[in-house]
Amino acid sequence: MLMIPGPTPVPEPVLLAMAKHPMGHRSGEFSALMGEVTAGLKWLHQTTNDVLVLAASGTGAMEAGMINFLSAGDKVLVGNNGKFGERWGKVARAYGLDTQEITAEWGKPLNPDDFKAALEADTAKAIKAVIVTHSETSTGVLNDLETINRHVKAHGALIMVDAVTSLGACSVPVDEWGLDVVASGSQKGYMLPPGLAFVSVSPKAWDAYETATLPKFYLDLKPYSQGAAKNTTPFTPPVNLFFGLHAALQMMQREGLAAIFARHDRQRRATRAAMQALNLPLFGADDCASPAITAVMPQQVEAEQIRSVMKKQFDIALAGGQDHLKGKIFRIGHLGFVGDRDILTAVSALEATLTKLGYSQFTPGAGVSAAGQILLG
Amino acid sequence: MLMIPGPTPVPEPVLLAMAKHPMGHRSGEFSALMGEVTAGLKWLHQTTNDVLVLAASGTGAMEAGMINFLSAGDKVLVGNNGKFGERWGKVARAYGLDTQEITAEWGKPLNPDDFKAALEADTAKAIKAVIVTHSETSTGVLNDLETINRHVKAHGALIMVDAVTSLGACSVPVDEWGLDVVASGSQKGYMLPPGLAFVSVSPKAWDAYETATLPKFYLDLKPYSQGAAKNTTPFTPPVNLFFGLHAALQMMQREGLAAIFARHDRQRRATRAAMQALNLPLFGADDCASPAITAVMPQQVEAEQIRSVMKKQFDIALAGGQDHLKGKIFRIGHLGFVGDRDILTAVSALEATLTKLGYSQFTPGAGVSAAGQILLG
Repeated sequence: MLMIPGPTPVPEPVLLAMAKHPMGHRSGEFSALMGEVTAGLKWLHQTTNDVLVLAASGTGAMEAGMINFLSAGDKVLVGNNGKFGERWGKVARAYGLDTQEITAEWGKPLNPDDFKAALEADTAKAIKAVIVTHSETSTGVLNDLETINRHVKAHGALIMVDAVTSLGACSVPVDEWGLDVVASGSQKGYMLPPGLAFVSVSPKAWDAYETATLPKFYLDLKPYSQGAAKNTTPFTPPVNLFFGLHAALQMMQREGLAAIFARHDRQRRATRAAMQALNLPLFGADDCASPAITAVMPQQVEAEQIRSVMKKQFDIALAGGQDHLKGKIFRIGHLGFVGDRDILTAVSALEATLTKLGYSQFTPGAGVSAAGQILLG
Repeated sequence: MLMIPGPTPVPEPVLLAMAKHPMGHRSGEFSALMGEVTAGLKWLHQTTNDVLVLAASGTGAMEAGMINFLSAGDKVLVGNNGKFGERWGKVARAYGLDTQEITAEWGKPLNPDDFKAALEADTAKAIKAVIVTHSETSTGVLNDLETINRHVKAHGALIMVDAVTSLGACSVPVDEWGLDVVASGSQKGYMLPPGLAFVSVSPKAWDAYETATLPKFYLDLKPYSQGAAKNTTPFTPPVNLFFGLHAALQMMQREGLAAIFARHDRQRRATRAAMQALNLPLFGADDCASPAITAVMPQQVEAEQIRSVMKKQFDIALAGGQDHLKGKIFRIGHLGFVGDRDILTAVSALEATLTKLGYSQFTPGAGVSAAGQILLG
């Protein structure tokens, strides 16, 4: 049972769709499928922009979203308050971009005022792009993309968003907010195994493409866009993952965006309430809590011991901390194909695990009760 | 029924393996799986070199295999006698490499003497790498990699090989020949759907990595190598395709390399004999015939009409020609999970199709008979 922030659980219809015999990717059948998939992706992104599909991880999509629209020496502003924000800074430097970071401590949200100050100071308009991680998977912090984006719009730079664990978990209204580049991955809100990555591209970003000179070929997005207009791909697509994507988007459309976002919000609140009822300190405040993942920093019991017992005894996979948070936090994923029952299951198992490990700072049943009240509230 | 050069047919155990629920990619279970997969890949490549797995198409692997070991301005020699050779020239130029092409007409093999002359003329050793497509999928021509490689070895440049439709179809003895970089893709000889790509890297190539300066991040192979040494990956791997790969490698190991290569050779000869018995001109000579694909250039009947009837009436997918060969040739794939029965089926259906289209330049049954004799010979 996967309660990690990816791979996330995959529904049976999606698994079975992936077990179908592949079809030729230059066939009419595949084009018909791709047309429906593209329409579904635009619906999920709330956009009329291109939404392109790559055979890659989310990192590949984010890199593509950066390098297609910039040239060596271009100045970029990168938000860094966790492992993924840090990574986009590394990508920027690997390509010789003039990289200025806006940082916050891991577990704290980026301060939109820091972006405002840096952008207002840039009267020469040297900053070509602002790169922001929406939901920072490593810490469970949701950055205030809407406010940051407002400052970016006032400046005129491109905004490039890592929405890997926010897309499909909370609203990322690409057109309403005017997000230029939005990257995501299949093993997250999409309810699919890993292997596909997505990037939406605004007309303004395509304008920037025309003068961007960073080298690229496999990650050159123009041929993907030209292909998508004819329901085809520049390179052989992972057709079986497309079968799964088609099935997953149909399920998502049946559930509806509002219901999907409400479910993630409910599970986020239920999980947090349960941790509080168990007197386990949450890592990250309520007002910046990711809809996809809750990070917990236990004090009187080892995070890694909790994960170990949860896995061995109950076959429930929780995520650990990354880098300097390794051993200090554990993370509960509630992203994608997660039902309310799964939250109760995880909290029940966690209560038993805590008791087994000698932690007694809670009334037995308090976590399950707190979660249940919110789920049914 | 897929008789195209990828995606190729996928065996049921592989399809079912892919339909399993994903596991966490940072788990001990996944590491154990990856260890077995890596061992299987080294067996298939006949090498002790690194064999790295990317979430990408074969093009992504080939690009990675080029850009990790070169710097802008480096001189490279690229063999171009078809769509894929042409593509590697495009990749080289996209990254600012000083690109010299060795060309041959589509349908003809590259002449090893042309490589010899260019390499011998390069007394200053300016040429850093020679890039060769082994089996040119667009034309069904197998280039003489062994001889070309011998000339490269005499010079000292790196050799980078597109083995996308040769690996798993005929012997590509990486260590014996000293091939520095070998790229391939899952939807070919591997009997898998598309979505994974592979690249083997020699110690000599890793030496070149140290001074190579082309920008890269997702396609930076060093983190993949460091990860593989610990049975892990730098970015989220397509775990369900890994499940399939594990099952496919087990099947291949049961069959054995010699038997796999003999099967492809037998089917190649049977297919060519059938075309000759039907008086359909082969595109490409016997002594450079790919073990993966046979290209046919019919004269009195339209290639696209043949493909259309084969698809509509018999649900057999054949490939068409690409670029200037569009409408002029059709291509029969016999790569990966193709049995001798499939060859007879395709030839039978082709005979019926030809008759339906008014082509009468053959004795009914002659194609099937010729193929059968070779398959059972």
